[in-house]
Amino acid sequence: MSVLITGIGELTTNTDETGDALVVDGDRIAWVGPAAQAPAADERVDVEGRAVLPGWVDSHTHLVFAGDRTAEFGARMAGEPYTAGGIAVTVGATRGASDEQLSEVVRKHVAEALRQGTTSLETKTGYGLNVRDEVRSARIAGEHVEEVTFLGAHLVPPGEDADTYVDLVRGEMLDAVAPLVRWADVFCEKGAFDYDQSKAVLTAAAQKGLGLRVHGNQLGEGPGVRLAVELGAASVDHCTYLSSADVDALASSDTVATLLPACDLSTRQSLPPARALLDAGATVALASNCNPGSSYTSSMAFCVTTAVLQMFMSVEEAVRAATLGGARALRRDDIGVIRVGARADLHVLDAPSITHLAYRPGVPLTHGVWKSGDRVI
Amino acid sequence: MSVLITGIGELTTNTDETGDALVVDGDRIAWVGPAAQAPAADERVDVEGRAVLPGWVDSHTHLVFAGDRTAEFGARMAGEPYTAGGIAVTVGATRGASDEQLSEVVRKHVAEALRQGTTSLETKTGYGLNVRDEVRSARIAGEHVEEVTFLGAHLVPPGEDADTYVDLVRGEMLDAVAPLVRWADVFCEKGAFDYDQSKAVLTAAAQKGLGLRVHGNQLGEGPGVRLAVELGAASVDHCTYLSSADVDALASSDTVATLLPACDLSTRQSLPPARALLDAGATVALASNCNPGSSYTSSMAFCVTTAVLQMFMSVEEAVRAATLGGARALRRDDIGVIRVGARADLHVLDAPSITHLAYRPGVPLTHGVWKSGDRVI
Ligand SMILES: [Zn+2]
Ligand SMILES: [Zn+2]
Repeated sequence: MSVLITGIGELTTNTDETGDALVVDGDRIAWVGPAAQAPAADERVDVEGRAVLPGWVDSHTHLVFAGDRTAEFGARMAGEPYTAGGIAVTVGATRGASDEQLSEVVRKHVAEALRQGTTSLETKTGYGLNVRDEVRSARIAGEHVEEVTFLGAHLVPPGEDADTYVDLVRGEMLDAVAPLVRWADVFCEKGAFDYDQSKAVLTAAAQKGLGLRVHGNQLGEGPGVRLAVELGAASVDHCTYLSSADVDALASSDTVATLLPACDLSTRQSLPPARALLDAGATVALASNCNPGSSYTSSMAFCVTTAVLQMFMSVEEAVRAATLGGARALRRDDIGVIRVGARADLHVLDAPSITHLAYRPGVPLTHGVWKSGDRVI
Repeated sequence: MSVLITGIGELTTNTDETGDALVVDGDRIAWVGPAAQAPAADERVDVEGRAVLPGWVDSHTHLVFAGDRTAEFGARMAGEPYTAGGIAVTVGATRGASDEQLSEVVRKHVAEALRQGTTSLETKTGYGLNVRDEVRSARIAGEHVEEVTFLGAHLVPPGEDADTYVDLVRGEMLDAVAPLVRWADVFCEKGAFDYDQSKAVLTAAAQKGLGLRVHGNQLGEGPGVRLAVELGAASVDHCTYLSSADVDALASSDTVATLLPACDLSTRQSLPPARALLDAGATVALASNCNPGSSYTSSMAFCVTTAVLQMFMSVEEAVRAATLGGARALRRDDIGVIRVGARADLHVLDAPSITHLAYRPGVPLTHGVWKSGDRVI
């Protein structure tokens, strides 16, 4: 089944391809160009001047969780500082939840994100923190999203010894989870795992054939970026506090700097130095960090709006970071772009241009969504 | 026709009334209380644990316009400063548009706001700036919104003499527009109208029986707040830059401080000192300032989110400011509250509490909307 989409007011491809029409054939983009030259197709859809862009690629979420942290958020808004400690609350609830309950939470959030134009999601384990619950989290995540990350090294479970826990994570836990995931990640931050502990986990994961990701430089300058670049990680995420050496290291590496502005706002931190990263030549991604503690949003549009209005990114840079940037952070070349052969993941805005994503903050602008060639909205 | 609404997870009334159920009868709230004590009603709706609050009262918009200023926004995001000068672009387009075109713009934005929970809107003239087009703007506005404001003193039309224009506004233009509006407003700011000019317009309007509003202190400290308090204006809007004397003056007056955070972000200004105003005891409203130049959003949720995450308002303060605060700024006691006898304007969130408006930034949370007793969403 092929569909010709015409009447595109502005087409953002993230490639050299241009046009006001495209053809979806099966789950792929089959043609991009001017409507006058369009090939025949089984069906035709006129989007009447609306903007079309690739579906959002949200490369950083934590969706396998249970429990409620609304009260912790309210307390933070009343002045309490954010620490990593709240994670333990979610760990307790997650261990106590059934497979069905966890699966329903993931399903609900994936559906909510899809309604807002997110067609690719990464999600992580990290609220299990024992072999049974990390395995369970990885399995359930894999039933709903296409990119799953092992984050056993999210936090040392309260009352456990850090080095003993690191040995468990890089040993038995990794052995059990590795067959279920593509990626491994660590929370390399004061209060979580230090440079040596983080490196021990990541090198063990690399030996198992997993790709690497790092949570780093969220709460202050730290070794996260340095470690990520040293080990050739696909991405280092947060990057809220960077030294100029960190910026230079990212600019001269293949490691993507993934910025999580909704998290920074939700924890009342500074916003990350996007301009410095872009000006230095680093590859930047934007992601939601959807999780119940520090950033409970699935709205990639909010991340783009914030990046433009408050982080001095241009609209084009922000949209690129939330599509192609996310794909680069996941080392994928079939998503985040509109080109012949790419997966047919399309986002149709109820607006004539992507500029409206920042020009109209908060207004829901998702008009249509196609995922793998299927129109879902 | 009466409807009993049950299963309210959290009810925000802005009054002393509490409960988990309420009855809508005709266009009014007829009862509020615990479901177990609910009176009989013709119909019953279970909102299944969702939060219910009054519909947003958006007390500051500029919806009677034509033309496109997307490019100006893009240029601003690329580093150009905001000035009031761009208003002239909209004036030219508005004068050139037909009644039908203008009416359609207002209708479309009112509908968009309603879909997001806004059940009361104020809107202004101010893109006509001659007698014919100000009259036309007021008439068209009145066909779509319940509160209309005369803003002939928005900008001195390019090429005209300021004092001559002020005489026109307070004379022939006011005579023609006054029967169509409830309010008069001036843009009291460097580059627009000074203290004496603003006062001349407002005193003439008061003599015609119009209520007063002021745009002030948007681009720097200025005389706007002082003038508004001196004349007993219902509201002074923007308040981005306030002296401590301004804060004190507002706190000891009935003039509402209406904050427009989406505008401040969209023009890359500072956010207003909400905390100082609230701590001093001033009444604060939040509004969208929806207009094609400086703040092209209809999202009151975005304003609330920003107020909490970045202006240090609590969720309760921000929601109150966007409902009851807006009603106070319009000197209305039948909207912005849920109490027996008030208009049945209800906003049902797809969330268990209003905290989620800040906890889940950007996620569209409007589940249901009732306006004047009619379920519209
Ligand atoms: Zn994370
Ligand atoms: Zn205004």
